[in-house]
Amino acid sequence: MSTLRGNALIGQSGGPTTVINQSLVGIVEEALGAEAIQGVYGAVHGIQGVLTENLIDLGKESKETLESVARTPCAALRSIRKKPTREECQRMLGIFQKHDIRYFFYIGGNDSAETAHILNELAVEEKFDVRLFHVPKTIDNDLRVTDHCPGYGSAAKFVAQALMGDNQDNRSLPGIKIDIIMGRHAGWLTAASLLARKYEDDGPHLIYVPERDFSLEEFVGDVDRVYKQHGRCLIAASEGIHGADGKPILQSKETDSHGNVQLSGSGALGDMLAAEIKAQLGSGLRVRADTLGYMQRSFAGVVSEVDAAEAREVGRTAVRVAVSGDRPHGSIVIQREGGAGDYRASFVPTELKNVARETRDLDEAYISGTNDVSPAFLDYVRPLVGSMPDPGRLSDFPIG
Amino acid sequence: MSTLRGNALIGQSGGPTTVINQSLVGIVEEALGAEAIQGVYGAVHGIQGVLTENLIDLGKESKETLESVARTPCAALRSIRKKPTREECQRMLGIFQKHDIRYFFYIGGNDSAETAHILNELAVEEKFDVRLFHVPKTIDNDLRVTDHCPGYGSAAKFVAQALMGDNQDNRSLPGIKIDIIMGRHAGWLTAASLLARKYEDDGPHLIYVPERDFSLEEFVGDVDRVYKQHGRCLIAASEGIHGADGKPILQSKETDSHGNVQLSGSGALGDMLAAEIKAQLGSGLRVRADTLGYMQRSFAGVVSEVDAAEAREVGRTAVRVAVSGDRPHGSIVIQREGGAGDYRASFVPTELKNVARETRDLDEAYISGTNDVSPAFLDYVRPLVGSMPDPGRLSDFPIG
Repeated sequence: MSTLRGNALIGQSGGPTTVINQSLVGIVEEALGAEAIQGVYGAVHGIQGVLTENLIDLGKESKETLESVARTPCAALRSIRKKPTREECQRMLGIFQKHDIRYFFYIGGNDSAETAHILNELAVEEKFDVRLFHVPKTIDNDLRVTDHCPGYGSAAKFVAQALMGDNQDNRSLPGIKIDIIMGRHAGWLTAASLLARKYEDDGPHLIYVPERDFSLEEFVGDVDRVYKQHGRCLIAASEGIHGADGKPILQSKETDSHGNVQLSGSGALGDMLAAEIKAQLGSGLRVRADTLGYMQRSFAGVVSEVDAAEAREVGRTAVRVAVSGDRPHGSIVIQREGGAGDYRASFVPTELKNVARETRDLDEAYISGTNDVSPAFLDYVRPLVGSMPDPGRLSDFPIG
Repeated sequence: MSTLRGNALIGQSGGPTTVINQSLVGIVEEALGAEAIQGVYGAVHGIQGVLTENLIDLGKESKETLESVARTPCAALRSIRKKPTREECQRMLGIFQKHDIRYFFYIGGNDSAETAHILNELAVEEKFDVRLFHVPKTIDNDLRVTDHCPGYGSAAKFVAQALMGDNQDNRSLPGIKIDIIMGRHAGWLTAASLLARKYEDDGPHLIYVPERDFSLEEFVGDVDRVYKQHGRCLIAASEGIHGADGKPILQSKETDSHGNVQLSGSGALGDMLAAEIKAQLGSGLRVRADTLGYMQRSFAGVVSEVDAAEAREVGRTAVRVAVSGDRPHGSIVIQREGGAGDYRASFVPTELKNVARETRDLDEAYISGTNDVSPAFLDYVRPLVGSMPDPGRLSDFPIG
């Protein structure tokens, strides 16, 4: 293909991550240096900003502002959860033509890839030449064909440090503690809690991912066994745990009184599990539940350096591939090279259809039984999370 | 008084902090260097470890282990929530005599000071010469006579970084978000959320501390007003908010169905406030609630350097005062010297009765109306929290 000249537009979509602006700034700096690209614009609130022509000029931002934004969690362009209709896609293409936008970079999860996919089909129909690129991000780590997703390493680091601290808390003041972790369909983030274990009796003692059916009865039995062994029990459970019928645990238990409960932004699942343990094992037990909540995707100041650098590079790569003219649309995936002690990543383009729509479960090899994660997962996750605190413990030498 | 020779015993009590082991290690290193002190022991699980003679030898720990423990959150000696009876205090003094324990350092909140106070009265009665020192810690910052408490700065840093991230999250995907923060009686920790505000429209837009009566009706009105102004609303509310009758909001609303709900380790208060907003302002609104939970006191890797250094020094000071013989018992308070730009701290002894029992509310000067914290509070809290991430924002330059 010949060089396509015009303006570039960037949008951010879906739930935030702490490194989503690294990708934004990676796109901006690469686009500003690309000969084929003139203006570098941003759409405020993703495709909603396109539809309302709420566009801003990113080329006028200072280098200092861009670097400051890159270090700031959550979508600096502001985000949106919206799947456009065909009519809206047609309107968007009209706005692209009006502003001579020939490059569109959409930072988001699989839904955003789907949006780019639909836009592309329409552009082909209408013979409007535009490069449509998806730039991946998701703390859920559930995109297909990529080794891992930008945003995951930092969220995994937050979860691991939270569980590491909570393990110490639970050891200080023993009891039963439940921590609910994000990830509606995939257990990648919940699995990262395994990083909190150092000593043999460390928690989390039980880890429940949505790739396995969850049984309240087995859960209570598991907790009872661990509590009898260690005198305490720390549990990491995905917000997406569900029964054998596929229905969320909370809904299948409380459909009548609560109706359609959302999973995130509520403590209801943890509270229900805590109440169940008290009801079955004794109301005198010290049982607590925390829902890690939005902090997993937004907490300021806990970022994996590897994740931040990769998020930046994924953005840069998308621009390079787009201006190369090798393909009219696509997404960027991260390939792992080297082993656990020699981690390196490479960034390569892939077809939009490879990341759109369907999601990717936690690998079977990383799941151990119904209530644990396999140590093999540590080789996968450690390089993505980077440096972690290393907890110490007294030797408990006897006196005299 | 003449020099009192014998062994030293250390215990940790109450809810953990991320720097409580700095105080432990400060006591250990100073005690190991004190001529009057021979053995340096630890009581596992505080006074429960004394009563069961579950004592360990801290003098045998390597310097490396101690430094590693100092950096680890939550009580390395393990903790306890227990107020001893008079009979138990008598048994404890018997165990002190048996092991020639002449120095007892109890790291904890006001209840631990109270325990030391009771032990002292009994020791005087029984003419057993022992130095009883309370070493303060509490994320609640609610001890009297001290400028601030070890443990508070790090918890305040966690809360500030959580709200800073959540403000970006709320700006990315607008809606109404409630964050519930620890502090049953005092609003010090909730007030730290003010550090998250940088730009004029930044949240938290509303801050509710337990020093003011909370009205659900006024709350809904406040949220409605902010939401209409900014198109979003981030709320920081203390877990201890209560009605004019002094009863916790959750209980006064849900006494019949829930009974005696604990404040921490449950998402119930946030969920109830979210449900109230939906019920009053419209079920279609995007309303979410997170309860920051035990992460505030235990999260590994988010520590104020000032807080860590002060916690260490408070432990050291307690030993120096104890072996000096100036007083048979006491606690250590932190005095602030210098202004906001020139913060320094000094560490001085005080009477046990000055920190025992009663707690200290957030200063009136730091409270603004019924739903905010005054900017004057920033001068107080900034030096205690130390370095914070500095969020950036795009300038939103128009295109063309």
